[in-house]
Amino acid sequence: MIRISLDAMGGDFGPAVVIPGAALALERHPDVTFLLFGQKSVCEPLLAKYPKLQAKSVFHDCEVAVGMDEKPSAALRRGRYVSSMWRAIEAVKTNEADVAVSAGNTGALMAMAKFCLRTMANIERPAIAGIWPTLRGESIVLDIGATIGADAQQLMDFALMGGAMARSLFEIDRPTVGLLNVGVEEVKGQEEVREAGRLIRESNLPTISYHGFVEGDDIGRGVVDVVVTEGFTGNIALKTAEGTAKQMAELLRSAMSRTLMAKIGYLFAKGAFDMLREKMDPRKVNGGVFLGLNGIVIKSHGGTDAEGYAAAIDVGYDMVRNALNEKIEQDLKAYHARRLPPAGPEEAA
Amino acid sequence: MIRISLDAMGGDFGPAVVIPGAALALERHPDVTFLLFGQKSVCEPLLAKYPKLQAKSVFHDCEVAVGMDEKPSAALRRGRYVSSMWRAIEAVKTNEADVAVSAGNTGALMAMAKFCLRTMANIERPAIAGIWPTLRGESIVLDIGATIGADAQQLMDFALMGGAMARSLFEIDRPTVGLLNVGVEEVKGQEEVREAGRLIRESNLPTISYHGFVEGDDIGRGVVDVVVTEGFTGNIALKTAEGTAKQMAELLRSAMSRTLMAKIGYLFAKGAFDMLREKMDPRKVNGGVFLGLNGIVIKSHGGTDAEGYAAAIDVGYDMVRNALNEKIEQDLKAYHARRLPPAGPEEAA
Repeated sequence: MIRISLDAMGGDFGPAVVIPGAALALERHPDVTFLLFGQKSVCEPLLAKYPKLQAKSVFHDCEVAVGMDEKPSAALRRGRYVSSMWRAIEAVKTNEADVAVSAGNTGALMAMAKFCLRTMANIERPAIAGIWPTLRGESIVLDIGATIGADAQQLMDFALMGGAMARSLFEIDRPTVGLLNVGVEEVKGQEEVREAGRLIRESNLPTISYHGFVEGDDIGRGVVDVVVTEGFTGNIALKTAEGTAKQMAELLRSAMSRTLMAKIGYLFAKGAFDMLREKMDPRKVNGGVFLGLNGIVIKSHGGTDAEGYAAAIDVGYDMVRNALNEKIEQDLKAYHARRLPPAGPEEAA
Repeated sequence: MIRISLDAMGGDFGPAVVIPGAALALERHPDVTFLLFGQKSVCEPLLAKYPKLQAKSVFHDCEVAVGMDEKPSAALRRGRYVSSMWRAIEAVKTNEADVAVSAGNTGALMAMAKFCLRTMANIERPAIAGIWPTLRGESIVLDIGATIGADAQQLMDFALMGGAMARSLFEIDRPTVGLLNVGVEEVKGQEEVREAGRLIRESNLPTISYHGFVEGDDIGRGVVDVVVTEGFTGNIALKTAEGTAKQMAELLRSAMSRTLMAKIGYLFAKGAFDMLREKMDPRKVNGGVFLGLNGIVIKSHGGTDAEGYAAAIDVGYDMVRNALNEKIEQDLKAYHARRLPPAGPEEAA
């Protein structure tokens, strides 16, 4: 049984998306139970429409909902202990839930998750990992915006955590990991990135296969399973790719409706277009994973619908079932055991 | 008359692309003359096939060609004064040409251009500006990889130079300028980016309209005419967008050939697909502009064909005709005049 706590008030549409999304996820995973945190007056009538979900859920009334534009510090001040977001996260801390899912504002969610769950021992900074559709399938990209800037050790941590996530999500033994870099300069890339490359290579972790540097166009090509970068660049790369995909979809749409011949062609090829749309459907890869905390938190896109929200729940489900955090902890242990100097004569004595 | 010097040996295909490319550009701009630098044995037979081009060109034999993978420092050592790349740039310095175009390796080209032409007074660092196709038309993005990292003043310089380029390329009076940033953190973005925002706003340049921060997905949307960022992020954003566009084109291609219905649909809509392909044709936006040097240098994509190379020449042509460097110098003068403290009593005396 996997226990999932949901911030029913998070996202642009709150419970109107969260509750039907949970119902969809339940159909796919009958072994799930839910803890729902939200405003009773809004949630209960919605929940009543999904008797199967209601039967598998425990509802907790919360008077505070964090706003989508609320600053993290303000949200933390106002919403700590009492908001639906906080209480969904807290359920993971108190071991009432295995994973928390929220479509609420990213900054507030990360601030609360850090405050409530704390960063894992031996991890300096949490990261947000996103799932990126590629020509080969899917890859993981991190950090996509938890923090700005990262030193070599932090990038090394990201590689380790991303590797553990890839093993949990794609169920492969030894995912390939690449460091995002540029290929223009003679002395390539930032100092931290080069140094991180050295650290990852020397760590010799049996759970990841270090590929070396990758460039921006290698992400969509699916050259590696895990792409590591700091949060500023990662966030800009992700949004740039989203923007380009939207731009091309828009151009395609307008091209297909311009002439009668194109319209007829569209009708014939509709099945192909539908397949393409499904393949590029951003809802299918919804779910940013907060890595490096003592508990798993999944961030759903704020503007998604029930289908997209269910996909974020799916990601949380996979992370729990495949023991993401246990994998990270094992890898950290192996990594730091190797890094410790051998016991000196005094300790040995 | 506009005089263009060409590094005939640059690029994956050298003169086989450069010479037909120049011939194409000449058809569009009969007021152009060329200085061609390359290996005589390879170039002359090719040039003989284009009598109109030959009539408008002066050919200079160069024994050295810079390799596409040669390190900038090695290229500079080996190719200074003697390579086709160097001599094409030098022609701008000696005022035998108005602009140099090369499809050679970016690092070597920038190193030689800096060494030969020197950075403009009051500009700390040159930048490479790329032309980005958007839903509204085209935007300029800089720096896309001249240097890694930029402080606030350098980002301010990029805004000024990008603005001058937008006025030269799009022939608009007051282009909008945005600073690339992320929208996730409470204290948004890097310190340098925030400080650059303040500098640009306070500069109050009459030649640009400062829009504020933009995010990755705003680039493809065409929210601003000029997007300013440092070279690491800019290069990754550009390559990520290229990768995403290729990925979508690949998915579309495979969807359109999977079923008979799709194939029939494709035939009907072929005109629309051709238009789309033309709109997204990367050859059409070929030509990175080196900004901030005492002379204009255009970098063509190394792997492009004659059509793409001609587009890079077109960009160079527009930059000269619209007096790019004069615009930059005027803006710099206006900017620094305003920044200088008023003359003190001693100076006034």
